[in-house]
Amino acid sequence: MSESIQCPGFVAAGVSAGIKKKTALDLGLIFSQQPATVAGMFTRNRVMAAPVQITQKRTAHGVAQAIVANAGCANCCTGDQGVLHAREMCAAAAAGLGIDAERMLVASTGVIGAPLPIAKIQDAMPALIQGLRPDGFEAFARAIMTTDTVPKLVRRQGVMEGTPFTLLGVAKGAGMIRPDMATMLCFVCTDVAVSATSLQAMLHQAVDRSLNCITIDGDTSTNDTVLLMANGVSGVVVETADQRQVFQDLLDDLLMDIARRLVKDGEGVTKVVEIKVTGAASRQDAFRIADTVAHSPLVKTAFFGEDANWGRILAAAGRAGVAFDPRVIEVFFDGIQMVAAGQGCGPDRETQITAIMKQPEFTVTIDLHGGSAEASMLTCDFSLDYVKINADYRS
Amino acid sequence: MSESIQCPGFVAAGVSAGIKKKTALDLGLIFSQQPATVAGMFTRNRVMAAPVQITQKRTAHGVAQAIVANAGCANCCTGDQGVLHAREMCAAAAAGLGIDAERMLVASTGVIGAPLPIAKIQDAMPALIQGLRPDGFEAFARAIMTTDTVPKLVRRQGVMEGTPFTLLGVAKGAGMIRPDMATMLCFVCTDVAVSATSLQAMLHQAVDRSLNCITIDGDTSTNDTVLLMANGVSGVVVETADQRQVFQDLLDDLLMDIARRLVKDGEGVTKVVEIKVTGAASRQDAFRIADTVAHSPLVKTAFFGEDANWGRILAAAGRAGVAFDPRVIEVFFDGIQMVAAGQGCGPDRETQITAIMKQPEFTVTIDLHGGSAEASMLTCDFSLDYVKINADYRS
Repeated sequence: MSESIQCPGFVAAGVSAGIKKKTALDLGLIFSQQPATVAGMFTRNRVMAAPVQITQKRTAHGVAQAIVANAGCANCCTGDQGVLHAREMCAAAAAGLGIDAERMLVASTGVIGAPLPIAKIQDAMPALIQGLRPDGFEAFARAIMTTDTVPKLVRRQGVMEGTPFTLLGVAKGAGMIRPDMATMLCFVCTDVAVSATSLQAMLHQAVDRSLNCITIDGDTSTNDTVLLMANGVSGVVVETADQRQVFQDLLDDLLMDIARRLVKDGEGVTKVVEIKVTGAASRQDAFRIADTVAHSPLVKTAFFGEDANWGRILAAAGRAGVAFDPRVIEVFFDGIQMVAAGQGCGPDRETQITAIMKQPEFTVTIDLHGGSAEASMLTCDFSLDYVKINADYRS
Repeated sequence: MSESIQCPGFVAAGVSAGIKKKTALDLGLIFSQQPATVAGMFTRNRVMAAPVQITQKRTAHGVAQAIVANAGCANCCTGDQGVLHAREMCAAAAAGLGIDAERMLVASTGVIGAPLPIAKIQDAMPALIQGLRPDGFEAFARAIMTTDTVPKLVRRQGVMEGTPFTLLGVAKGAGMIRPDMATMLCFVCTDVAVSATSLQAMLHQAVDRSLNCITIDGDTSTNDTVLLMANGVSGVVVETADQRQVFQDLLDDLLMDIARRLVKDGEGVTKVVEIKVTGAASRQDAFRIADTVAHSPLVKTAFFGEDANWGRILAAAGRAGVAFDPRVIEVFFDGIQMVAAGQGCGPDRETQITAIMKQPEFTVTIDLHGGSAEASMLTCDFSLDYVKINADYRS
């Protein structure tokens, strides 16, 4: 796998710096051999980790050349010292690479409140830089894992007016239910040339359709970060509306793939479920209902129990704060209708639906019959292992 | 216990009508020998069960004389037939008691979507009415239980200008996390004389301070119902501001006691935790933060794991949508400070706090240092048993 997951003009590496309790890769670096335009999206949590504060400011300049990231410590709630440590982490990497520290971005994930072991990071920096290779993204992906069980590394290739270009995405996941802490990090590299303004607009749109439509949502963790760097090495220029559309489609596809992998590898997840709301008066209404159903602990435990408990789905929809007529609502599990005119279709139908729920992935469609807008949310079940993992996270 | 839990002028009963899968008390009746003034608060869920629709309308008239309630079937998402069944349930009880059906209130709890077995209820009605006794409230309390492990029955006695009066509350609990389905029902009887308008205002205030400050919140289940009937049998009149205050205090105390019992007996609960937010700019701000922390699955699983994971508490506070300065925030577990100036107080302190978390009840105080308003929310941990109970609820 490592051979094929590359993006022209980018190199990456991951080493063990001794930050995680158990010895494992925990410090990673991505380097663009050319300065790149950059776009970013960040947590909207009031409690924002030190590295996010720095990276957000630097991303606003529109140019960057490298990302240094660690797992095992979120460097959050660490005060002025935390900001200093994040700057020192950037400085160490920038000095080794011979670039301006202002072009170095930084991200951290792990336990909140512990000081960043900056000396260990500085000590490991020469080996990290030494290890940079075009096929180093798998090591990078492993270095940012926390409770993830598999690294998330995805590549897409497109063709723009006859010239091929590449998108490479690497990410780490999180607890699946409004992650307060188990941060989502996602870094995308591409070899097209595009202005920072366009890049930001396209990233925003792609994230809204993918990472913001899974139960990891952007405004919850203290460290959530999505970065997109474009280095122009392919010679492909993204400028016109048509060119932007080609790039946007591939970026959407890449981030949707990553989003699905993040849910699938969520803590204790046994089932991935798409909650699709149709027939709404507005997309916002549809999204609010999908979001409420997707987060309901009672719905999610019923998914875990393979129980076709449609009453919980209707009850969750009903408390989403959206006006709809419960007497016309319909609910489907994949192609099978479970609720017609707001009432259940009977025990025989439930037997069919229990069979659908035994699958690792299925879709619940809620048709409100009140308009033509729709929205989807990708969620997962809520299992015994979720509780076990999160009761013992720090021990 | 049953001897003492009485309220003058009221009788109650509970019987087994065969509504629950396993044979158990499942049909209850409370009857006031005098017509009573009545106040009520109901779910704000768009999907509102048939009995709630009827009871809400009748309560608006301000006079009632009896409440008939069942467990085992919520009579929700049951269409026009469900409304008809709820009316028939009232009619059967009212005919047996010889009162106007308009003065009969009704409540149901249990699985959503199943038709109410109205014939069984009608068949059981004579025995139910026959069983009415002043000390019948414990049987009533048992008849409305679903996943509750103990009946909730509380009495308070007050003295108004030398004359004693009584408040009696009976309730059933729910899943502890935004209950979509496991309805909260609470019925309060009192022997004071008070206008329906005053009664409604006092009930509203008491519920806002108690039942709306636990993680069972009024706008989620399809069947949530709180009713308060006052029959005037004691001769105590509640009219002046001073009289109202005496009654309000006792009502607040009664409902807070019930609220605490509901949380304590929540599904799979091993710990009851008060989340207290102080130093907020407004009570609404304080409440929003308390509410977000109290509902965070990651905070609740950490409670279950007895892990002093204060980072999750700060992260949840940060995503509540309230402006505050994370650099001055303080967090205490009971009397012990864990966070000062937005940073942890170190591993020694965590050891002390782990000891506090081993207790069945404790308080987490979050001081924002941004004002003088405060609010509290009573919550519980999120345990393996919660998932087990809710994965298997209907099987």
